[in-house]
Amino acid sequence: MDYDALFKAQLDALKRDGNYRIFAELERRCGQFPRAANHGTGAREVTVWCSNDYLGMGQHPKVMEAMHTAIDRCGTGAGGTRNISGTNILHRELEAELADLHAKEAALLFTSGYVSNWASLGTLGARLPGAVILSDALNHASMIEGIRHSRADKVIWKHNDPEDLDRKLAAIPADRPKIVAFESVYSMDGDIAPIREIVEVAEKHGAMTYLDEVHAVGMYGPRGAGVAEQEGLMDRITLIEGTLGKAYGVVGGYITGSAALIDFIRSFSSGFIFTTALPPAVAAAAAASIRHLKESDAERMGQRERVAQLRARLDNLGIPHLPNPSHIIPVMIGDPVKCRQIADILMEEYGIYVQPINYPTVPKGTERLRFTPSPLHTEEDIDRLVSALGTLWKQCALSRAVA
Amino acid sequence: MDYDALFKAQLDALKRDGNYRIFAELERRCGQFPRAANHGTGAREVTVWCSNDYLGMGQHPKVMEAMHTAIDRCGTGAGGTRNISGTNILHRELEAELADLHAKEAALLFTSGYVSNWASLGTLGARLPGAVILSDALNHASMIEGIRHSRADKVIWKHNDPEDLDRKLAAIPADRPKIVAFESVYSMDGDIAPIREIVEVAEKHGAMTYLDEVHAVGMYGPRGAGVAEQEGLMDRITLIEGTLGKAYGVVGGYITGSAALIDFIRSFSSGFIFTTALPPAVAAAAAASIRHLKESDAERMGQRERVAQLRARLDNLGIPHLPNPSHIIPVMIGDPVKCRQIADILMEEYGIYVQPINYPTVPKGTERLRFTPSPLHTEEDIDRLVSALGTLWKQCALSRAVA
Repeated sequence: MDYDALFKAQLDALKRDGNYRIFAELERRCGQFPRAANHGTGAREVTVWCSNDYLGMGQHPKVMEAMHTAIDRCGTGAGGTRNISGTNILHRELEAELADLHAKEAALLFTSGYVSNWASLGTLGARLPGAVILSDALNHASMIEGIRHSRADKVIWKHNDPEDLDRKLAAIPADRPKIVAFESVYSMDGDIAPIREIVEVAEKHGAMTYLDEVHAVGMYGPRGAGVAEQEGLMDRITLIEGTLGKAYGVVGGYITGSAALIDFIRSFSSGFIFTTALPPAVAAAAAASIRHLKESDAERMGQRERVAQLRARLDNLGIPHLPNPSHIIPVMIGDPVKCRQIADILMEEYGIYVQPINYPTVPKGTERLRFTPSPLHTEEDIDRLVSALGTLWKQCALSRAVA
Repeated sequence: MDYDALFKAQLDALKRDGNYRIFAELERRCGQFPRAANHGTGAREVTVWCSNDYLGMGQHPKVMEAMHTAIDRCGTGAGGTRNISGTNILHRELEAELADLHAKEAALLFTSGYVSNWASLGTLGARLPGAVILSDALNHASMIEGIRHSRADKVIWKHNDPEDLDRKLAAIPADRPKIVAFESVYSMDGDIAPIREIVEVAEKHGAMTYLDEVHAVGMYGPRGAGVAEQEGLMDRITLIEGTLGKAYGVVGGYITGSAALIDFIRSFSSGFIFTTALPPAVAAAAAASIRHLKESDAERMGQRERVAQLRARLDNLGIPHLPNPSHIIPVMIGDPVKCRQIADILMEEYGIYVQPINYPTVPKGTERLRFTPSPLHTEEDIDRLVSALGTLWKQCALSRAVA
């Protein structure tokens, strides 16, 4: 059997649909973020406009220093799974920092946010007898895969619609464990969940709540614990999941919750148990980043200012973008080939890097450019971006938003 | 509903069975491996005898240097998924290094070895229409979960038994895609697969082969590419999977294979697409480690010497250990409570850390201590270990192997 031919046939279909991905090959440059060298096609020097290092913490001196120090202290790797020689004191310190951040009894570190969602929902759904997982319709792939993996009954409720959730919870017998899984900031539309209403509905029906804050931690709330902190709701959420790879600038995922909940996932989750622990130096860097953003508001304020500026400038030009209360600015294109073309021209002619977001990351027909201004983008960066987009919008005769 | 009570009930059952895990809290000390500080219960200073940093590369000066340099060059994180601003030139360099290591056309990096198995088998099984995955009975949890996730038909063949595989392949229609999934070194028994026989059976039936070399890369073969390299069989394996978190001393997983195969997994695997890329500094450290072990045999030779010494000394004392041709020395206890007691005494009274390996990592009744001598363990370390085990074997009146 010619396996390569089978692979190529499916790749060809992807290419025909315009959904084949070509990765930009960057060289991030410390101290120059959001500038990067580009080793792929296009300009040699680019300004990155689509990073999830939302606050530029990946080059913060305190974070780098913590990582350097931990390498010299403990080496480059953990040396084992958490159970077999891989638990370092730096992991425990980070977990204590995370529990404190979200005002929970305990926290558990995973190799990524993807794995934290997949493993936690997978374990809860599989091990709570008769469990039903109620999943927001736009939940992230990692949650969907975790739920699928658990083989628990799944009920999908309308995106950000507490009334639909209420109806669906009411239809489930009271004695079945129920898990309401949702996100605070949805990364592709940038909209924010009505957390209070969702929590109240869940409480009414005796459901536990599972909240993914990966696009919020570091950026929302007085200490950067996310939207639930901002809204004063952390203590009413059963499990808060977050990442160390976006605003905190490193890599890794985590969950926080009651001591019993965390011990349960720690003890039964295959995706936690059977994998090498993150390097202690990664844990130390993440802890330094969290500690800094607990104290400092400057990065959050700087980000908000840039986000507001870019939105206002796009409005002035009549370039349509999804309205939302977050830091994410999606400019809708609605066609995968056009979306890539515009991104290619921005990269080649203007040195502006924004990744075209196509299927399967977003539904077909909602292809978009997704801009994430950081506190380190300058007003000149915004000028250059807006000027380029204005020129392109004329050239491509794209429909403008009605003023 | 009292969710904490549900969690606690299952944790209590685990405790009753003696399978509740308590993590040792170590502080690895750079330059002193296998010595570490112990922040949990037991002696303050321990010698680690169960690390998967098999060759001590996690403190190798070249590996540390590469990580430091990359942090100063590119910062602490990748800043995005591979598709959305997260591909760094250091990832591409590592993937080129890995393809070269295994003499394959291409390689793909994952956040962990667990994810590389789960995502790759999950994608192959789900996207090759009519696929059947033939899985060795003792495959690792990450492979089992990937196969389960794919929902492809699964056939389990007897561990390391090419004849059973042959019979089972013969029963599957010729026109169905078939994936034979197995490992080279099985980590808990330390036995090694008859790769040549398995490959020949697979070829006879037109099956592709999926080989997990995580406990072999760095340590077997003239350039450390694993057992398939040692046996001259790399070019006959369709997909070789490995880790950067064991002998290479860092963290991360990977697959290598034909360009079409790698592009296929890259393009369709949820676990690859929707997750933040590893920090460029992790990639740089891993590449430095691979390059060193391509050239240097000293670490491999040192490891073999220590393994042979420890085996001989155990034999002299009549302490039973599983015979196998690898670097892993399992001393069988066969009871979870005894297994933990012995490990506790070693830790508390002798400063020797070896994790008790209980269910679910190994089947109930096969609980064991698993020793992994490294080139950095000294003859004095072996003396101390063997003397402690000898004393304990007397005290605990454990059955001795018949001479």
